[in-house]
Amino acid sequence: MDELIQKYQAIRNKMLAYRFASFIINWDSNTEAPSGSFEARSRHFGILSEDSYKFSTSEETLSVIEELYKNRNSLDEVLKHEIVEAKTSIDKLKKVPMDEYVEYMTLLAKSENIWAKAKNTNDWNLFEPILEKIVAFLRKYVEYTKTPKLQGYNILLDEYEKGMTQADYDEFFNTIKTDLVPFVKEVTSKTLEYNNSFESHKFPIEKQKEFMKYIMEVMDYDLTRGLMKESEHPFTSGIGTTDVRVTNHYYEDNFISSIFSGIHELGHATYEQQVDPELDLTLSGGGGSMALHESQSRFYENIIGRSKEFWKEHYPVLKDLFKKELKGIKLDDFYKHINKSTTSLIRTEADELTYPIHIMIRYDIEKALFNNELEVKDLPKVWKQKVKEYLNIEVPSDKEGVLQDVHWSGGMFGYFPTYALGSAYASQMFKVMNKDFNVFKSLSSKNTKEINAWFKENLHKYGSSKSPKDLFKLCTNQKFNPKHYVNYLIKKYTKIYNLK
Amino acid sequence: MDELIQKYQAIRNKMLAYRFASFIINWDSNTEAPSGSFEARSRHFGILSEDSYKFSTSEETLSVIEELYKNRNSLDEVLKHEIVEAKTSIDKLKKVPMDEYVEYMTLLAKSENIWAKAKNTNDWNLFEPILEKIVAFLRKYVEYTKTPKLQGYNILLDEYEKGMTQADYDEFFNTIKTDLVPFVKEVTSKTLEYNNSFESHKFPIEKQKEFMKYIMEVMDYDLTRGLMKESEHPFTSGIGTTDVRVTNHYYEDNFISSIFSGIHELGHATYEQQVDPELDLTLSGGGGSMALHESQSRFYENIIGRSKEFWKEHYPVLKDLFKKELKGIKLDDFYKHINKSTTSLIRTEADELTYPIHIMIRYDIEKALFNNELEVKDLPKVWKQKVKEYLNIEVPSDKEGVLQDVHWSGGMFGYFPTYALGSAYASQMFKVMNKDFNVFKSLSSKNTKEINAWFKENLHKYGSSKSPKDLFKLCTNQKFNPKHYVNYLIKKYTKIYNLK
Repeated sequence: MDELIQKYQAIRNKMLAYRFASFIINWDSNTEAPSGSFEARSRHFGILSEDSYKFSTSEETLSVIEELYKNRNSLDEVLKHEIVEAKTSIDKLKKVPMDEYVEYMTLLAKSENIWAKAKNTNDWNLFEPILEKIVAFLRKYVEYTKTPKLQGYNILLDEYEKGMTQADYDEFFNTIKTDLVPFVKEVTSKTLEYNNSFESHKFPIEKQKEFMKYIMEVMDYDLTRGLMKESEHPFTSGIGTTDVRVTNHYYEDNFISSIFSGIHELGHATYEQQVDPELDLTLSGGGGSMALHESQSRFYENIIGRSKEFWKEHYPVLKDLFKKELKGIKLDDFYKHINKSTTSLIRTEADELTYPIHIMIRYDIEKALFNNELEVKDLPKVWKQKVKEYLNIEVPSDKEGVLQDVHWSGGMFGYFPTYALGSAYASQMFKVMNKDFNVFKSLSSKNTKEINAWFKENLHKYGSSKSPKDLFKLCTNQKFNPKHYVNYLIKKYTKIYNLK
Repeated sequence: MDELIQKYQAIRNKMLAYRFASFIINWDSNTEAPSGSFEARSRHFGILSEDSYKFSTSEETLSVIEELYKNRNSLDEVLKHEIVEAKTSIDKLKKVPMDEYVEYMTLLAKSENIWAKAKNTNDWNLFEPILEKIVAFLRKYVEYTKTPKLQGYNILLDEYEKGMTQADYDEFFNTIKTDLVPFVKEVTSKTLEYNNSFESHKFPIEKQKEFMKYIMEVMDYDLTRGLMKESEHPFTSGIGTTDVRVTNHYYEDNFISSIFSGIHELGHATYEQQVDPELDLTLSGGGGSMALHESQSRFYENIIGRSKEFWKEHYPVLKDLFKKELKGIKLDDFYKHINKSTTSLIRTEADELTYPIHIMIRYDIEKALFNNELEVKDLPKVWKQKVKEYLNIEVPSDKEGVLQDVHWSGGMFGYFPTYALGSAYASQMFKVMNKDFNVFKSLSSKNTKEINAWFKENLHKYGSSKSPKDLFKLCTNQKFNPKHYVNYLIKKYTKIYNLK
């Protein structure tokens, strides 16, 4: 048994080494690689990825996992969880005919490029046949891999957030539909009055970077185990607890962007840096799930980062840095600016309040697709209808509609709902955290250390060594309840918009 | 046969993929990796390196090489050269008992750290036992691998510069000893008079970086296939012709340093970027040898970069950037400043004229060690004697003496001579290039394009697809002759120091 575990540790170590290489190569690609190097690097990276895939699906690897699975009840808890997860994935993949799977992977290798071209040229017809094929495969895939417990769209949902079913999400999005949609319509019909004269100013990028350095200190981000750099789209990436990096982007005419992208990514990074370092030698490090990860980034970005209490402490610093640009702008003006809500076409530009509506639209469409109530060819039409229905705006082009997101071109159906779920998790965690200490009051200490410590103890330290449901339970001592999210949003925006 | 070549191409591709991963990981380590990540990354990198080593020495790889070797006369020239080289390495390594080799590798894995500690604490006794073991292994190694043609120190010299023997180097360093040493003593006894008031000024780093951008344009460095970043020690690193990167370092109180480190590294990078792109898919890309690589960096740094003709064009730009700092400083002052020669203890800080003397000292010592005329324990004493003899200065500590360089701690005996050889190659190439066009005159075009093009056609395009001797011959149409180097230095410094 000890020998078997040692063998598995060697397998883990090699998988971690591949993950490490992949992390560093992608980091380089996204932050500084010369434009002329991409053809060669994609050739090299392809070979390394194939190697890694072959190793993780090799006879030897699989047999070690099968053996450990048979003896799972004598394993420690972390290892047992990891083996059960691995065994489930292996069994699932075995049900899919290899030739169909390879064909699908080949399709995905080129689909993103085609999507990008279709989006740029606003040409749905270019993308449609590819998406047809992707959906066709996934419909077969869910047939191949169905179990008595899981069928259809549930299988895809479970892949991105283990344990969450269509029934769970229906409850969640129904709450949003009935309680939030009317409220959003009310809010977005109002205009928020404040001194917004600074919106036309240019905010020097060097100063924005200086402010981000300050924010890193406020959030207690450990720069001996991470760094912040620039990239087109901000992201967090890393391996283990000792190398967790974030990127940010800076716009002279939108200084708000770097602040909230920065806080968002640092929320992700705080999660990863605070995992128990012992998990660094396992495959159970990192965050517990997509939604749990997003709960942390959104907690710091929205609940903390867009609160008045946070800016009471830090706005003077910002104002001191941008003396000229923010002259005469009061805390209340700034607070309104970072919280104003407007309906918009693009998900990634949506504000805290309207964001879940964008996700709900995607959820409705995905659900209908995999319950065979909708066909790919009808997507642009349905998209426009739903945006009109929930956000009351017209979609002028597919580019700003059904073609806007990359996810579906990568076969990522079932992923979107985790974004909204993350925000909802965050609100419930906020409620629970407040039982232990007054969260907003803790911000008067000028940093987020007390919040970080609470998350470390109640969520972060476990990494991904337990199921998302178990982790959520450990963190909150409650079952997930979407009401907290809707209540939080309604309370916050009622006050900001001075509604009854 | 075609099938065999295809198999070999797959092996090449995988080796290139490993090289690529290794390049990116090391680049990251040397330019930005967080300090806390090194323990984990060395674990991951160790696993990848082992994998790469196992692959390149696997039964399958070796058998393909053996088969191709048997059929070498039907291969194209590039492939044939590559296979003969590979076969030679394999045969050599087979002669070394595996357990002794593994033990040596384990020793090397920790020796650099011990050297660094010994250097920092000026403690020769800490390093001596390690160096004893390294030299003991290498003495056995040359016994195991000797052939009728190559024995002793020759074997090590051949590993760093194929085809160069002790007899060749003896001729080279004897010329330096007899013709250059007396001249150096004369020059370094004089004081160069010029307006050096700017030496105490601070030169803002942002402006130094701006000037480096200008230099990159002057040297026509292709930024779509490379980039310049910062690191403690400047270096060039890359893969193929489409990703060739350099680093530089900046000191406020030594603005000269970044200029010449930058030109030096860009010389290396020009070589790699100008290789025939078809060699990107082979293992015959990159520079042809250590000395040939160094010939290029030193050509651009010293022959071009420290010439009056170069600065006649570019000093006005520098002066315009540092208006305040260089006020009243004439071209002639600046030219003298970048060419003054003084005896010094540290090789890496030595000027163009005294540099080869530092190398000669190391060559003498290495030669004596591997001809069993010197023992490791006597190194500090011999070092001091030689520095006194050739440079006429006292060595106050081992830290500034025998412990100053990292090379020996990595078992790199035979490497140092290539540094001086590179400079000598450069001088001879300069002589030959001048037959085709007036090199210094070409600088009035404000860039080095004509020089780059000459090197591309006569040296760079071949990559490492031929032996160093063949490459030197192709480039110069001559055999190597050390007189050109000594003549070049004597001519240049006679003029600068206004000697008879």
